[in-house]
Amino acid sequence: MLSINKKKYLKSLSNKKNRLIDNKILIEGLRIIEEAIKSKSSFEHIWFSNKHDKESDKIISLIKQIEKNNITYSFEKEKDIQSISNTKNSQGILGLIDVSNFFNKELNNFSDKVIILDQISDPGNLGTIIRTCAWFGITSIILTSASANIFNPKCLRSGMGGHFYINDCIYLSDDEIINFINAKKYKLYCATTTGESIYNIKIESRWALVLGSEAHGINKKLLFGETISIPKHGNIESLNVSIASGIIINQLIRKK
Amino acid sequence: MLSINKKKYLKSLSNKKNRLIDNKILIEGLRIIEEAIKSKSSFEHIWFSNKHDKESDKIISLIKQIEKNNITYSFEKEKDIQSISNTKNSQGILGLIDVSNFFNKELNNFSDKVIILDQISDPGNLGTIIRTCAWFGITSIILTSASANIFNPKCLRSGMGGHFYINDCIYLSDDEIINFINAKKYKLYCATTTGESIYNIKIESRWALVLGSEAHGINKKLLFGETISIPKHGNIESLNVSIASGIIINQLIRKK
Repeated sequence: MLSINKKKYLKSLSNKKNRLIDNKILIEGLRIIEEAIKSKSSFEHIWFSNKHDKESDKIISLIKQIEKNNITYSFEKEKDIQSISNTKNSQGILGLIDVSNFFNKELNNFSDKVIILDQISDPGNLGTIIRTCAWFGITSIILTSASANIFNPKCLRSGMGGHFYINDCIYLSDDEIINFINAKKYKLYCATTTGESIYNIKIESRWALVLGSEAHGINKKLLFGETISIPKHGNIESLNVSIASGIIINQLIRKK
Repeated sequence: MLSINKKKYLKSLSNKKNRLIDNKILIEGLRIIEEAIKSKSSFEHIWFSNKHDKESDKIISLIKQIEKNNITYSFEKEKDIQSISNTKNSQGILGLIDVSNFFNKELNNFSDKVIILDQISDPGNLGTIIRTCAWFGITSIILTSASANIFNPKCLRSGMGGHFYINDCIYLSDDEIINFINAKKYKLYCATTTGESIYNIKIESRWALVLGSEAHGINKKLLFGETISIPKHGNIESLNVSIASGIIINQLIRKK
């Protein structure tokens, strides 16, 4: 049974400060929880709403995975689950995850494909970009401090479990990013609306790609790489940043 | 000045039924309104919050566009604008648009590149796809009835003005879509997770692309075309549908 204090605690994790206190996040929904299990995340517990039919194939199959991974779980009153949930219509599955090891301070480990997110302040866009990175096997992400919090509930929701496939993630200042790019000899691509077509550039095997906010673009300090862009066909001013990230990443890594 | 009844009316347009009564929609935000003006939409009026500095470059430039297009506008109390707005932090610019001519029943006019959206129920995704279509110059869209309403406030918001570049838009049943594709001899591509790589298919000059919901994919009746997919590199189960649409549309129309 969920005690009042436990409910309060779980609810409090929608707040960034509270998540930082002991590095715990609450995730919601069947698919996100499935991805987190698949990627061997450190679960503390999983709660199901008792509205679920325990005999349904979906629940039986999920519980099999949960037990195989030695994760504890319980069924709780629907109204308790709903009161903790961050969504209006909760799917009735919540998981508590320890993310103490999520942020990697060891820049030497970063892979040879790095995404740098500058001032991506919309958590929905940020989550979608993380999901896209996970799909394309990109596991190293750097964020500037003006970006949204990566564990914001909306970001987790649109990330759809993509977070749990990221191996290296860190928030850095502009100067730290510049030093990193130079020291580690990455080819830097900067996504803009006026750069060279992504179909005309030489694609290096070791690169970092900077994506800026829709409102402000990439800040000047980080604009020292090769500017690249997606050729436009229609009349509208701009493309959504997560759509742009998908098209560009796809082009940078795609097998011919 | 905004009367109580006018405020009530404008507020009521967040509801689909009310929008249908006289084919009016309310749009919000600087960029969306700019795109709507640029694309010659039928404005009834534009309201600014008096929180805006009338002497700012941004407002002067916008008002110049508004006057050039003979659109009426007024400045109103911030609290009135906020009370009508669909967002928590309104940008303080609202526009009322007549969309009587938005839905095109004349299928003969549809261009040789058509996007078919099947059960795209998330209005944010739907809007982002519309914005992506506008970017790529795709102006003909068909939706199945289980898709979100194209004028849902969230859809308008994520559409970022893309709606106003769509020339042909219609909601059709599956059977009507099948008849249309066959009669008009479109090559049909169906985006799935198991189809042929988008890099290995022959791209015809006249095509329709079906995109299905993330939860259910494309319904069986519409799955009669060539199934195509984006090669996956990472481990996560799926890509966001709007990201997938961006990558696939880009590939189908891109100049080599």
